[in-house]
Amino acid sequence: MSLNTFGHLFRVTTWGESHGPALGATVDGCPPGIEVDAEAIQVWLDRRKPGQNKYTTQRREADEVEILSGVFEGQTTGTPIQLMIRNTDQRSKDYGEIAEKFRPGHADITYWQKYGIRDYRGGGRSSARETAARVAAGGVARAALSALAPQMKVTAYMVQMGERGIDRSRFDLDEVGRNPFWVPDAAAAEDWAGYLDALRKEGNSVGAMIELAVSGAPAGLGAPIYGKIDTDLAAAMMSINAVKGVEIGEGMAAAALKGDENADEITMGPDGPVFHSNHSGGVLGGISTGQDIVLRFAVKPTSSILTPRRTITKDGADAEIVTKGRHDPCVGIRAVPVAEAMAACVMLDHLLLNRGQVGEGLRGRIGPA
Amino acid sequence: MSLNTFGHLFRVTTWGESHGPALGATVDGCPPGIEVDAEAIQVWLDRRKPGQNKYTTQRREADEVEILSGVFEGQTTGTPIQLMIRNTDQRSKDYGEIAEKFRPGHADITYWQKYGIRDYRGGGRSSARETAARVAAGGVARAALSALAPQMKVTAYMVQMGERGIDRSRFDLDEVGRNPFWVPDAAAAEDWAGYLDALRKEGNSVGAMIELAVSGAPAGLGAPIYGKIDTDLAAAMMSINAVKGVEIGEGMAAAALKGDENADEITMGPDGPVFHSNHSGGVLGGISTGQDIVLRFAVKPTSSILTPRRTITKDGADAEIVTKGRHDPCVGIRAVPVAEAMAACVMLDHLLLNRGQVGEGLRGRIGPA
Amino acid sequence: MSLNTFGHLFRVTTWGESHGPALGATVDGCPPGIEVDAEAIQVWLDRRKPGQNKYTTQRREADEVEILSGVFEGQTTGTPIQLMIRNTDQRSKDYGEIAEKFRPGHADITYWQKYGIRDYRGGGRSSARETAARVAAGGVARAALSALAPQMKVTAYMVQMGERGIDRSRFDLDEVGRNPFWVPDAAAAEDWAGYLDALRKEGNSVGAMIELAVSGAPAGLGAPIYGKIDTDLAAAMMSINAVKGVEIGEGMAAAALKGDENADEITMGPDGPVFHSNHSGGVLGGISTGQDIVLRFAVKPTSSILTPRRTITKDGADAEIVTKGRHDPCVGIRAVPVAEAMAACVMLDHLLLNRGQVGEGLRGRIGPA
Amino acid sequence: MSLNTFGHLFRVTTWGESHGPALGATVDGCPPGIEVDAEAIQVWLDRRKPGQNKYTTQRREADEVEILSGVFEGQTTGTPIQLMIRNTDQRSKDYGEIAEKFRPGHADITYWQKYGIRDYRGGGRSSARETAARVAAGGVARAALSALAPQMKVTAYMVQMGERGIDRSRFDLDEVGRNPFWVPDAAAAEDWAGYLDALRKEGNSVGAMIELAVSGAPAGLGAPIYGKIDTDLAAAMMSINAVKGVEIGEGMAAAALKGDENADEITMGPDGPVFHSNHSGGVLGGISTGQDIVLRFAVKPTSSILTPRRTITKDGADAEIVTKGRHDPCVGIRAVPVAEAMAACVMLDHLLLNRGQVGEGLRGRIGPA
Repeated sequence: MSLNTFGHLFRVTTWGESHGPALGATVDGCPPGIEVDAEAIQVWLDRRKPGQNKYTTQRREADEVEILSGVFEGQTTGTPIQLMIRNTDQRSKDYGEIAEKFRPGHADITYWQKYGIRDYRGGGRSSARETAARVAAGGVARAALSALAPQMKVTAYMVQMGERGIDRSRFDLDEVGRNPFWVPDAAAAEDWAGYLDALRKEGNSVGAMIELAVSGAPAGLGAPIYGKIDTDLAAAMMSINAVKGVEIGEGMAAAALKGDENADEITMGPDGPVFHSNHSGGVLGGISTGQDIVLRFAVKPTSSILTPRRTITKDGADAEIVTKGRHDPCVGIRAVPVAEAMAACVMLDHLLLNRGQVGEGLRGRIGPA
Repeated sequence: MSLNTFGHLFRVTTWGESHGPALGATVDGCPPGIEVDAEAIQVWLDRRKPGQNKYTTQRREADEVEILSGVFEGQTTGTPIQLMIRNTDQRSKDYGEIAEKFRPGHADITYWQKYGIRDYRGGGRSSARETAARVAAGGVARAALSALAPQMKVTAYMVQMGERGIDRSRFDLDEVGRNPFWVPDAAAAEDWAGYLDALRKEGNSVGAMIELAVSGAPAGLGAPIYGKIDTDLAAAMMSINAVKGVEIGEGMAAAALKGDENADEITMGPDGPVFHSNHSGGVLGGISTGQDIVLRFAVKPTSSILTPRRTITKDGADAEIVTKGRHDPCVGIRAVPVAEAMAACVMLDHLLLNRGQVGEGLRGRIGPA
Repeated sequence: MSLNTFGHLFRVTTWGESHGPALGATVDGCPPGIEVDAEAIQVWLDRRKPGQNKYTTQRREADEVEILSGVFEGQTTGTPIQLMIRNTDQRSKDYGEIAEKFRPGHADITYWQKYGIRDYRGGGRSSARETAARVAAGGVARAALSALAPQMKVTAYMVQMGERGIDRSRFDLDEVGRNPFWVPDAAAAEDWAGYLDALRKEGNSVGAMIELAVSGAPAGLGAPIYGKIDTDLAAAMMSINAVKGVEIGEGMAAAALKGDENADEITMGPDGPVFHSNHSGGVLGGISTGQDIVLRFAVKPTSSILTPRRTITKDGADAEIVTKGRHDPCVGIRAVPVAEAMAACVMLDHLLLNRGQVGEGLRGRIGPA
Repeated sequence: MSLNTFGHLFRVTTWGESHGPALGATVDGCPPGIEVDAEAIQVWLDRRKPGQNKYTTQRREADEVEILSGVFEGQTTGTPIQLMIRNTDQRSKDYGEIAEKFRPGHADITYWQKYGIRDYRGGGRSSARETAARVAAGGVARAALSALAPQMKVTAYMVQMGERGIDRSRFDLDEVGRNPFWVPDAAAAEDWAGYLDALRKEGNSVGAMIELAVSGAPAGLGAPIYGKIDTDLAAAMMSINAVKGVEIGEGMAAAALKGDENADEITMGPDGPVFHSNHSGGVLGGISTGQDIVLRFAVKPTSSILTPRRTITKDGADAEIVTKGRHDPCVGIRAVPVAEAMAACVMLDHLLLNRGQVGEGLRGRIGPA
């Protein structure tokens, strides 16, 4: 059995399988009076939608979200919001072989071992399709953030795909929406296109690194010790399919640093403290500093590839598997909007938590009275 | 305010400040009938205890744990177990300056901004001292694991300190307990000693990388989607003071891999599935495969250093700070037993969750009936 | 905002408004391998369905449940089960007046004050219609109980309606399904019919008392201190619309008893302890004794009546209200299947909790080895 | 195993056994900046303390609370507050017989059956002594309420003891603190004294009914559907030892009422809505109306009595038991301060929840702009 809910006060429960009748998110704890409708949520779902270019799975789903509850006359009412997306393109025949054989590197085998039953069609619950529900919930979170913390911006983008990276000197957030890779570097986008094309043609797949930045977050968000803002963001990212690592600020590189290299010096500015670097990634002791929160996470290459791999069947026979069907050569691409959605949920959650447990705004003003 | 509890069924709430009267852990959800006493828990606390060699803070605490409830005649009763450690060495005078100035890279400033009040003595709640409570709780978790899953072993060790690494060809777990760095490489231990000595003398500090391995865990542990075993382990590590990144299996390196390089092939063995590599780190889809679970996390260098750094005071005046007092040159050293304790708690928690929600043992046997 | 989930391991989140597109329940934590389908759940929904006789609201809803996830080939998979019921008979025009005026004794005014927005149509979220979702979830719980604890029976029935009671000497559970009042006394059923008819004709409503009995529950269920089985059952009943009190065993009458009257004496029988009375209602210290668990709860009369009552409008003007539309003269009737559903969920939840936290079966056998 | 925490945002975990080294409460989620110290909490503990007159157990405990964490310079810091009370008067020899025999009507037998081990000394975890920890936590909640909602008053008092009631025409809250029964009727206090004396001398015990009133609570508290304010208060009362029923407003009597008798009419007053009666007990749809919240609960007579009763031993032998030792003839007396403490915790919890999830204050103002 399972724990399909995340969040403390803003709680999202996702449900649904890749090839069942529908999937969705039950969102509980959204404040009342937030303006939101299906169109506003659809915008975000459309960003994630597969089949938009040759670099994502050719499965074509309308991915149309329906709001079944919790919104009245265009505003949230404070009651649970049910977001449903019908599964329309369920070509189950594609998945005949995986009913019997476990894909190496896939959750097929562990779901079977744990539950003794699995909806093998399209990966069932372990399919990346589940993330559509997260994006829908993220749409609600964004609407609430727009109202409660309009200055906050949550943006994710790819910074590495396989062996290819970006050139930080060309970094331009405006580029992110202009290429199929959500990469903030126009030249990299071009280069990556050729690189992924070649991989796709050979039926292979590749990993990716995504960076997520939250700007405009107030200082004071995060609930030590076990609801730290960075812990919760890290857990949110780790819960996304295929994510194998997450780091904040200097991240894994912090292991190699010395104390005098790592400290972010502070001076007093007209509007409050000014940090002179951001090694911390915007979080100290699990609480936001008011700087940009910056984290990165790594997505492994999809396990559904055309290269034959050794595996076993449900009955314990040795076998070989080649995963045909419509799969993403770089599943990291679609992880970008998912990461944004998860982060929006976490940030809203902590905004509400802070309000409930500490009160509105910063309590500890720095500077003369 | 705060969220100071972790775990689903095996729930640990830590409490206490560095220089308050005591700190401890309230452990709820331990099964009844587990043999445990203060001595058994003390063993683990002694591993973490500061002041044992020149590489950890010279603060000397007896760190003696007292069991105040939940254990009767040497066995757990199924009621909450209260573990208390008195603070005995509270040299508050050491901390005079930090009452007024915020240490760069430390939670001093964010606690102040969030709460408007902070127990500045020794870092208060954000002190690494809080982790003693985790280690005590981990002692209970280990006792329960010994009874319920005796084959499971949870081991952490350092694999990097600043610019120094280990040589995997000399990897020897038996070395871990023989040197002050918990490093599984005798030659590295010697090398690191000189390296850290130099840093300590210049009043600097350094980061570290720790690896954690869980062997003997059964397949089937982990509760998708938001209670995945790797998510919960990652969150546990990220909640440890100064941790900036965590990765499982190939981790961050997965971003550079191709699908055919990353798949762990499977064949059928006499006792069940045999995996031919462990790129996944023992987890697929958030559920354990039965292989070793392997993760790494990075600890940043302590912010308490002798190098003067720019900062501000509570009143908003620019200032300079030099942190005297007794601080760890490499706080990562003490993170090793803490990581083990956290992992023991997570593993026990998921063992109990599985039992409750799926039933005893694996449900999906692989192979002919 | 809101907390729309109940249960510890078997967690049910209900969602939906009376006149929105749909309502339903997100069920998380059901063990895998349980046989269940829409037909099995529909049986329970049909028992609650309004419009079946003249004593319940004439609103006619098909109340057809659709399983959107979590069930594969007729078995639960251990993933979330989404149960949706479309609202088909939304005659919103009936509710014109209550958009402006608050019904005395109804949640209209408090939802408005709390949230500043409310879906007034049919009472929105506070409508008894929400309980359809609970009954659907209860259907899943019953299916799981059938598999895991087949001897357990959960039965509710009315024992009082307004000024009319039952004669315990004629008590016959077989009668419960044969009359529109779920009353275990054929003569009372006849008497109540005339009584309620008269009330209905005068546009009045009446309260009710319902008794719930769980037989066949094993000893040892219940998690002291704050997850006691009686606390959880009481909370489940109190959460049902219009419930104003709940009691277990001797209940409120225990206040008048002496210690020697209240003790349930115990002797040893061939199969274990035998209790010679059941003043406790089957629960001691929050843990089941193995006897029948017996509780009662009181439902107030519906506030939607034809008698004119003083009230105010949203704009603060004094007004008078007469609630036309289709309302239940005794809403307690429909509370019977709802109580059963809630109790089934609670019993399953504690069965799973016990399994996870204590282990299968009783740990403390009584008697010679 | 167990669930020893209550509350959503203001979370209290009680721990400890009657005759262990200590017991206490871990309080998490108290807002920062609240003035509180041991003396302020001690006031409430002293009200509950046994041995103060001949009507409560003659066990004499200092019941001195020690604050181990979370308070700095007289103010809460937003970190967990650990409240410890040492057990000083552990005359374990009194309890020799109950190590072997189960008291009828007591949790002795169910703890044994569930856990297979129990701390039989003084009832262990199921002792009413556990409620001292609740009272301590309630002291913190009261301090926070004083700061955040100074107009709110939480008061409990006895309205029935066995066959004796009160005369509501003599109702005087000022009397409550002047007699050993917390009864708001001076004449009743005198009468009850003789009544209980007689019962005490014959070694018998008696039940009680307690009323709890919360005045000054703002409208809008309560989180439908499963965190209703009345549900949470009812669960809090039901969790108190020996409580067998709870009712709000008209309570169990609502079953006999008609709709036109039960509606609380509303007119508009200068400061907002005015309710002309309070059948609802101050709660509609699980949300407070702004009226007094009024509930009652019944406490059964203690099972520890001198009358010989049949029982069995751990080994399954039939036996007879007479419970000597120091027991309360009417355990309901000590339930009065416990109920107040629990209610204070619930009210604070919902105040914080509302703040987090809805925002400060009422959202839906009634009346012209």
